Amino acid sequence: MRVLGIDCGGEYTGYGVVELCSEEELVCLTCGAIRLSPRQPLARRLTRIYDELGILISEHRPGEVAIEEVFYALNVKSALKLGQVRGVAMLAAAAAGLEVAEYSPLTIKSSVVGYGRADKQQVQHMVTRLLRLPEPPEPMDASDALAIAICHLHTAGTLQRQRAAAR
Amino acid sequence: MRVLGIDCGGEYTGYGVVELCSEEELVCLTCGAIRLSPRQPLARRLTRIYDELGILISEHRPGEVAIEEVFYALNVKSALKLGQVRGVAMLAAAAAGLEVAEYSPLTIKSSVVGYGRADKQQVQHMVTRLLRLPEPPEPMDASDALAIAICHLHTAGTLQRQRAAAR
Repeated sequence: MRVLGIDCGGEYTGYGVVELCSEEELVCLTCGAIRLSPRQPLARRLTRIYDELGILISEHRPGEVAIEEVFYALNVKSALKLGQVRGVAMLAAAAAGLEVAEYSPLTIKSSVVGYGRADKQQVQHMVTRLLRLPEPPEPMDASDALAIAICHLHTAGTLQRQRAAAR
Repeated sequence: MRVLGIDCGGEYTGYGVVELCSEEELVCLTCGAIRLSPRQPLARRLTRIYDELGILISEHRPGEVAIEEVFYALNVKSALKLGQVRGVAMLAAAAAGLEVAEYSPLTIKSSVVGYGRADKQQVQHMVTRLLRLPEPPEPMDASDALAIAICHLHTAGTLQRQRAAAR
């Protein structure tokens, strides 16, 4: 099972593709961040996000996409910016025929660190350990995107085991 | 000159295509609203907006697109919803190679009604008169979208006249 995690942001949009190879082994196939120049027109910035996510999906062929659920933002202006990127990211997944799962920040942190109020450094530390990476994924947005993908793999694994137990 | 105005919203997204036929004559080619069912998954709703706007653009071939600038919203949640739709609408315009112009609500109302604090009914009334429509465009989102298109045509016309005067 292979998952693309996307961490949407007004300036940086992180991404990470994680594969569950055996029951315990998680492998990072790629990660990074798309940086949008605030000097470019908005429509061009959004087109870049859409195109880069499309390329990423066609290169790495994830079976599912996971993104963070957002309930709050610093303010209305940042919520609007974030929403624009988020809409385009969901569209890119849907265009490739992929389902999009959404997880709250609390669920993601609990799943990766075991503690819902963990900070970004703790998430980065655990992502590095879980994926056995030689060094912490940078920028932080890439690490957050990997955490979202790991959270989805954990959740999907738990659901599968629950279904198996119910049979 | 033919303009597609888009009035983005969390539930209804209005659209209207207006053509400036002679110096004074504005003609409405189509208008309406795309309604998103809140029961559908978000990715599917966004895909529908993107696809319907794409069809509209290929059918009516506007030369430019105009949308409302947003500085505030009721709250962060509605700003996020609005942002998602707005991002996808801008992407649909960019995919067709069209420039997107943004206007503040104040500019749109001033341009159509002559008064920046006009209410939606006043906008609808003036849109009906300016386009010589047999009846007011419904829903209100369609009327707002036509107002955005008219605002862009007025502004573009003024710019042209300024440039001509400067020569």
